[in-house]
Amino acid sequence: MSDIILGKTQYGKAENRVVRIYRDTPRHEIRDINVSTCLRGDFSAAHLAGDQSDVLPTDTQKQTVYAYAKEKGLTSIEDYGLTLARHFVHDVGPVQGARIDIDEYAWERAVVEGQEHPHTWIRKGQEVRTAAATVDGEGEWVVGGLKDLVILKSTGSEFAGFLTDEYTTLEPTHDRVLATSLVAQWRFAGTDLDWDEVYAGVKSRLVQRFAQVHSLALQQTLYEMGKAVLVSFPIIAEIRLSAPNKHHFRYDLSRFGLENNNEVFHADDRPYGLLQAVVTRDDAPPAGPAWDLHRGWIG
Amino acid sequence: MSDIILGKTQYGKAENRVVRIYRDTPRHEIRDINVSTCLRGDFSAAHLAGDQSDVLPTDTQKQTVYAYAKEKGLTSIEDYGLTLARHFVHDVGPVQGARIDIDEYAWERAVVEGQEHPHTWIRKGQEVRTAAATVDGEGEWVVGGLKDLVILKSTGSEFAGFLTDEYTTLEPTHDRVLATSLVAQWRFAGTDLDWDEVYAGVKSRLVQRFAQVHSLALQQTLYEMGKAVLVSFPIIAEIRLSAPNKHHFRYDLSRFGLENNNEVFHADDRPYGLLQAVVTRDDAPPAGPAWDLHRGWIG
Amino acid sequence: MSDIILGKTQYGKAENRVVRIYRDTPRHEIRDINVSTCLRGDFSAAHLAGDQSDVLPTDTQKQTVYAYAKEKGLTSIEDYGLTLARHFVHDVGPVQGARIDIDEYAWERAVVEGQEHPHTWIRKGQEVRTAAATVDGEGEWVVGGLKDLVILKSTGSEFAGFLTDEYTTLEPTHDRVLATSLVAQWRFAGTDLDWDEVYAGVKSRLVQRFAQVHSLALQQTLYEMGKAVLVSFPIIAEIRLSAPNKHHFRYDLSRFGLENNNEVFHADDRPYGLLQAVVTRDDAPPAGPAWDLHRGWIG
Amino acid sequence: MSDIILGKTQYGKAENRVVRIYRDTPRHEIRDINVSTCLRGDFSAAHLAGDQSDVLPTDTQKQTVYAYAKEKGLTSIEDYGLTLARHFVHDVGPVQGARIDIDEYAWERAVVEGQEHPHTWIRKGQEVRTAAATVDGEGEWVVGGLKDLVILKSTGSEFAGFLTDEYTTLEPTHDRVLATSLVAQWRFAGTDLDWDEVYAGVKSRLVQRFAQVHSLALQQTLYEMGKAVLVSFPIIAEIRLSAPNKHHFRYDLSRFGLENNNEVFHADDRPYGLLQAVVTRDDAPPAGPAWDLHRGWIG
Repeated sequence: MSDIILGKTQYGKAENRVVRIYRDTPRHEIRDINVSTCLRGDFSAAHLAGDQSDVLPTDTQKQTVYAYAKEKGLTSIEDYGLTLARHFVHDVGPVQGARIDIDEYAWERAVVEGQEHPHTWIRKGQEVRTAAATVDGEGEWVVGGLKDLVILKSTGSEFAGFLTDEYTTLEPTHDRVLATSLVAQWRFAGTDLDWDEVYAGVKSRLVQRFAQVHSLALQQTLYEMGKAVLVSFPIIAEIRLSAPNKHHFRYDLSRFGLENNNEVFHADDRPYGLLQAVVTRDDAPPAGPAWDLHRGWIG
Repeated sequence: MSDIILGKTQYGKAENRVVRIYRDTPRHEIRDINVSTCLRGDFSAAHLAGDQSDVLPTDTQKQTVYAYAKEKGLTSIEDYGLTLARHFVHDVGPVQGARIDIDEYAWERAVVEGQEHPHTWIRKGQEVRTAAATVDGEGEWVVGGLKDLVILKSTGSEFAGFLTDEYTTLEPTHDRVLATSLVAQWRFAGTDLDWDEVYAGVKSRLVQRFAQVHSLALQQTLYEMGKAVLVSFPIIAEIRLSAPNKHHFRYDLSRFGLENNNEVFHADDRPYGLLQAVVTRDDAPPAGPAWDLHRGWIG
Repeated sequence: MSDIILGKTQYGKAENRVVRIYRDTPRHEIRDINVSTCLRGDFSAAHLAGDQSDVLPTDTQKQTVYAYAKEKGLTSIEDYGLTLARHFVHDVGPVQGARIDIDEYAWERAVVEGQEHPHTWIRKGQEVRTAAATVDGEGEWVVGGLKDLVILKSTGSEFAGFLTDEYTTLEPTHDRVLATSLVAQWRFAGTDLDWDEVYAGVKSRLVQRFAQVHSLALQQTLYEMGKAVLVSFPIIAEIRLSAPNKHHFRYDLSRFGLENNNEVFHADDRPYGLLQAVVTRDDAPPAGPAWDLHRGWIG
Repeated sequence: MSDIILGKTQYGKAENRVVRIYRDTPRHEIRDINVSTCLRGDFSAAHLAGDQSDVLPTDTQKQTVYAYAKEKGLTSIEDYGLTLARHFVHDVGPVQGARIDIDEYAWERAVVEGQEHPHTWIRKGQEVRTAAATVDGEGEWVVGGLKDLVILKSTGSEFAGFLTDEYTTLEPTHDRVLATSLVAQWRFAGTDLDWDEVYAGVKSRLVQRFAQVHSLALQQTLYEMGKAVLVSFPIIAEIRLSAPNKHHFRYDLSRFGLENNNEVFHADDRPYGLLQAVVTRDDAPPAGPAWDLHRGWIG
């Protein structure tokens, strides 16, 4: 008869909505983030006996998140995440590993009478910048990223020559709309760098290749996007890309005597293709726990 | 004993997701919209007896929406909406009134190596532009608008001197974060105008006043925003504003020996203040059915 | 030159998430609600001059909502809403009208070893019960309702004999799936009744008629549902129904040599038909402000 | 200089919304599901050269999903998922592994005049049943599960004796509301079983232990829930549980002279505790690719 045992566990406080204003000069600065903490270690006493003596409450994790935004500052989400992760691992006895996930929402300054306003912003609304900082007894890992980058090209995309079977009804096409809501996550090989500069550069490279590559398949475009990032940024060891194929179906207008030369589309919701790929280096350092997700390890 | 009778009815096809590409030159243009149609008239035979002979199917309304994007073109949502509404009222016998609601999602051109790309765009993600065109036997009405314009100022906002009762615990403040996700809808007094130019101007005026008015109350800011729009645009008869007060609570860091001079906030989700105001002209023409909503007349 | 003036205004605290436990005996009871308050009156000083002396803060409204759940109790959302609305109008000088909107989420008792558990519940997850109580100097109005009641019949529904034009491609059908996510709101002619009993009865009648009526059109079904409610409940003056036609498209399997006798469907998201109807009495008392919505009067 | 290489890839069609009606007798049956397919293998030619000759289009995967609902039938999501996964791996040359994720939405029969209606249903709205079937050259794995099971107990829960540090402000409590929206996934050690019976049994055991365990910590409750499932079902090798602590904060009514003996709560949205745990057997067979998620391997 088998014994029933406790396996892996983790816990934390998810989705702390911190807004940090820097107001030392009349021209304020703003950082707007959503922070989730996740602690790992031996918390079996809490699970098996309800004994909390090794459990730092998730409420305390929340207080720390807000306190650190002032005490340590919040200038980049990667540094802030690392600082929090180091604190939990180094300062809280029972914690052996910590992962901090952060989403950042960008704001742009309101332009009033041709001038950037010193303390008014409009939420930018485009992609969300993400970071995951993991610290444990073995080292430190940072994964940068972005999500919800909705991007579309109205030509320069084909899909033909594919495998067919008895359930295939799709017609090949040599001109279609290609659109996705990109998720990308890149693993850094170090932690000493200008995070903002690299972020801007990665986003720019991703967009550039999406635009420039004549696409024979979304798979091909994804690979070229990832490769361009690795070519440009030696500090990045690996990049993972996840791309829903947001189908834009050419609407059949021939029934009404109208031509439709890829001019009118129905943007469909579901189902959608979902393509995922990793692009990496042959000599990439080990990933360690960098990809051990907070939510992802269960559905 | 009372008789049970059929009251007001309306029906249509909601949320047609039309994407229109103009590709007559290598520099393409894109319009990305969500269109809802709504027909009014005497459809009692369908309700009382299941007799559809006066009912233009919602599927036909959908086909028309897509066909018109090609046949009539889609250059502004206000004109496109009017064209659809006129068609249903003038060309379909039993239809006595039509309302077309449209949301438009803006895209910006991808910038590749310093140049705007001719056929690649990133979804802008900021506010959604809206339009509602209503046509009936009496005339035509257009309501322009925007929603989801998330705007914040980190100083220049007070809330003090308010009414108190035995349930009041709020402390007055002379410096707070003021943030909202603005919904604005403005009723035009005519239909012959440059819709894009007015839209840009209205948005600019709203943002400008939000930034410039030293706010003693969000109510005051809303009124000033609405007034500025009416002052600048004589063609606008009335503007309605709805603004959730997206509370940013100053986090209490004193427990940790830290000062918090309006630097660290918790951005709360619910509950939120919700303020609504109409700013109008004393000689505004009658609104007719301009505000008879498609969804709004029930919850 | 026209003068610019302030029109209608209203303000309140939206989405207070109150959970009320009754625990006077070991068998607890639970009510789980989302309350929005909305005050009306002359608040022009706040709008025009930023003078808050007549403005009861939305924070105070929130405190009152929670305090009343204890002080006055929460046994039905209709009574609780009325009590709050009366308080704001009668006890707070500048308030001339108040509307309280409430959503209620039902819970069912966990069944453990065949017994209902005294203090454990599972959220029921089905329809949301709604109520809107409005009080002003003229009287009191209650609108009961439900939303998100997702209901489907797999036969007994036709759609044929409809009006056609040059954009019509739909084929008539004599057997289809009919499905909707029903919103219904009914206006009471009084306030002295057993709210829970009427609610259960109305829901039951709506479901019964949806099932029993052989549907020639969703319009017809809606009318029959509304009529049945009015026939059964003389205290209800009027009912409004809003029903998206959640399209279930029969999937074309003939390409694979398979028959599909209404067995396999694609449940589509958008677009969808949206049908709305009012069923009322010829001698219904005036609606007054019963339908002046909190959110709905702007988009 | 490192070489840039393609790593792991996968692709499929996500969120096919299939509704299957069995109508061989007047008493119909309904299954309502959301199916996502995911294929694995060597698709490097598509990524590196845009060569699709080994790529079965996601559109074909969609067609197969719908066709199989008729051709093979849909009586349990676990069997249907396995059948699809086997097909892709065994019948489509280049496919080496397939994972099928399915969500199922339950419907309950409408009760009309005391009788279950033969072809009308109300969507149940409670938890979503999930299944993930993975097939590759090594074998077959099925993970059953549920999500969105919102469950609450109004007493019988403590949280005290926890670790404190300089950021801890939380007070211990010996009576609180405990609520979560449970996600559970259990890995089967075989594929020959009565899926529906086990599902009902697992859900029942989870609810039972949540109710019965006097909780010293949500961690403890989760472990006891998982353990009870493994004790009852030898065919289950492992169970993973993820539970947001849906905080219900006791509202401070003392400011209004009111007692609040755990009677009035604010149900907060964010942040929330998030606890995750695996309960397993010491002799559980290897998990293989059972937990290689479709979406989860990136953010």
